[in-house]
Amino acid sequence: MQDRLPALEELETPCLLLDRATLGRNLAAMSGRMRSHGVALRPHLKTAKSAAVAKLATANEAGGITVSTLAEARHFAAHGFTDILYAVGIVPARLDQVAALRRQGIDLKIIIDSPDAGRAIASHGDEFAVLIEIDSGAHRAGLDPASPLLLEIGHILNAARNVTLLGVMTHAGHSYHCHSTQEVAAIAETERATAVDAAERLRRSGIRCPIVSVGSTPTAVHARSLAGVTEMRPGVYMFNDLDQLALGSCGPQDLALSVLTSVIGQYPERNRVLIDAGALALSKDISASEFMPEAGFGTVVGYDGLSVVDVNQEHGFIGSRRTLPFDRLGIGARLRLWPNHACITAAAYDRYHVIDSELDGGTTVVEIWERVNGW
Amino acid sequence: MQDRLPALEELETPCLLLDRATLGRNLAAMSGRMRSHGVALRPHLKTAKSAAVAKLATANEAGGITVSTLAEARHFAAHGFTDILYAVGIVPARLDQVAALRRQGIDLKIIIDSPDAGRAIASHGDEFAVLIEIDSGAHRAGLDPASPLLLEIGHILNAARNVTLLGVMTHAGHSYHCHSTQEVAAIAETERATAVDAAERLRRSGIRCPIVSVGSTPTAVHARSLAGVTEMRPGVYMFNDLDQLALGSCGPQDLALSVLTSVIGQYPERNRVLIDAGALALSKDISASEFMPEAGFGTVVGYDGLSVVDVNQEHGFIGSRRTLPFDRLGIGARLRLWPNHACITAAAYDRYHVIDSELDGGTTVVEIWERVNGW
Repeated sequence: MQDRLPALEELETPCLLLDRATLGRNLAAMSGRMRSHGVALRPHLKTAKSAAVAKLATANEAGGITVSTLAEARHFAAHGFTDILYAVGIVPARLDQVAALRRQGIDLKIIIDSPDAGRAIASHGDEFAVLIEIDSGAHRAGLDPASPLLLEIGHILNAARNVTLLGVMTHAGHSYHCHSTQEVAAIAETERATAVDAAERLRRSGIRCPIVSVGSTPTAVHARSLAGVTEMRPGVYMFNDLDQLALGSCGPQDLALSVLTSVIGQYPERNRVLIDAGALALSKDISASEFMPEAGFGTVVGYDGLSVVDVNQEHGFIGSRRTLPFDRLGIGARLRLWPNHACITAAAYDRYHVIDSELDGGTTVVEIWERVNGW
Repeated sequence: MQDRLPALEELETPCLLLDRATLGRNLAAMSGRMRSHGVALRPHLKTAKSAAVAKLATANEAGGITVSTLAEARHFAAHGFTDILYAVGIVPARLDQVAALRRQGIDLKIIIDSPDAGRAIASHGDEFAVLIEIDSGAHRAGLDPASPLLLEIGHILNAARNVTLLGVMTHAGHSYHCHSTQEVAAIAETERATAVDAAERLRRSGIRCPIVSVGSTPTAVHARSLAGVTEMRPGVYMFNDLDQLALGSCGPQDLALSVLTSVIGQYPERNRVLIDAGALALSKDISASEFMPEAGFGTVVGYDGLSVVDVNQEHGFIGSRRTLPFDRLGIGARLRLWPNHACITAAAYDRYHVIDSELDGGTTVVEIWERVNGW
């Protein structure tokens, strides 16, 4: 721990600023939404990768979380989380690590979508808790719910004495490419119905299937019914970003994560200002561009129409259709940027500098929260 | 330090593999090239960010290095490097940190391209060594060499008792977008001539200008003359990548850096295999696509025509125009990927697993080298 918290103007740039007040509102809104649906919230920590955020996100929930790497699983286990879903298809080489965490009392659940993976788990000496991944239209991973493989995998797991088959899970990642909230709502309904149908197919074959797990931030926000669903796994709703804003999952007041950067050069002859947040500090993710082409690699907080129009490794180029306000953008001036995709941008940093807009307008660092990156 | 080195098959995926043999050949080739030009090699460590690599890269050189962040400067200073050029425009808020390193005996050189930055340095209490950044056509940072600002800054620095004006530097970053090696050679000549002309302008005004520093990997490889240049600062040549391959800076046998990944799903119905190297493990950099559209987010080593066609945070989608060889791509199968842009991909990892293709075909981990990320 540092002796004292740095002042905002002392921070090395680029760095991450996380507004605790906005985070708190985002967490409360999603908790309320899931409570009204009668569905458990199992927040996905792939975005935040922070035990401090996980504690806030689960404060009024059952406590279960979702992770995207075993590094996250180990980190959250070390911080007292015991109910963890590892939501990326397991490979046999990772079963020993999963078993080691389970022997420490961590109820680490894994997912599969192939008979091969099912047989590898069934022939392992340790006990596992498994969900079957279903494809609800994203065509990333998961089984077609009508596929004969669903029952084949169900029977392999059900017959294995070392396996508890918990149910099914799906992720409607294609909700990130919708052109309207109506379209998101339709995908949310498909996500729900597909998962519920798969669970029902298993149940009709005499296989228990207590968990029906779905989720993405857009579908969590816009689902009209979650009948039959038992838990939801959104992640980026905690912070939000330009991509979620463009998709209608949040409003501009719901953006909690920004990158603090310094102006390092001024080039009025080409209407450009250079900043020290480039491809590493912002990532090359331009997902918001699908619906918000002017977002570039990030937009400048408090400067309408200014965005990062290009990036090199450690250089970002700020541009605008209008003449830039060069008098306010002198060398050393500090700017905040809204990132396109919080999950990807945040991964370049090992900590959050926490601010609080309700406390003092977000003008001081009130806490520092560590992140767990890598694998 | 770990008790023993892991076997290749024990490595957690995704992870970075660095072939020491290829690295050594790349370093020797660039050293030989610069020696034949009579130009000092000041390797840019923004790609490798590793003291072990820096030691090899400077083994037969003067020892000076280039860095892109103060975190790199501190790291290399701690590992015995004393001649360091920080090649991103300085902001006044960083001068205290630069001065602190200089007081420790580190000859940390900084760059500027504005009178404002020059005056901030001149009015600081500590001593600094400064180069003026020139724009040789990349239009990122730097002065037009014909601009009156060049002499204005020169005189500000020359008059300051706490400043040693060392010379000029430029980076022809637009060499990354050339369609032929002839075009690269032409940009290399412009890079050289622009920097030399700027130095001559300063000298004609009675300002000493001992250093004329240029460099990028493409221009370092294809420059025909470096007359008047005193040092070259390429970086990615150490590892190379698909982007450099597409640009003609290297051949396929010169790729030293790959990402090791595991297959986590098979989807023959859509001719896709899913791997555990996604947007974080590979980055969203698709720079090679400008000339090599089939490169996607990376190509699969040893599998002609297979590439990563899309990425989510922790998922990569392998596809091909042909039917994938699913029998060789079962769940858990390990693949190596050539990244688009080594500098950006490597930044997701905290270490290199070093292999040696000349020792044993690269089948065991022979060393582990740490990286310094962040700011």
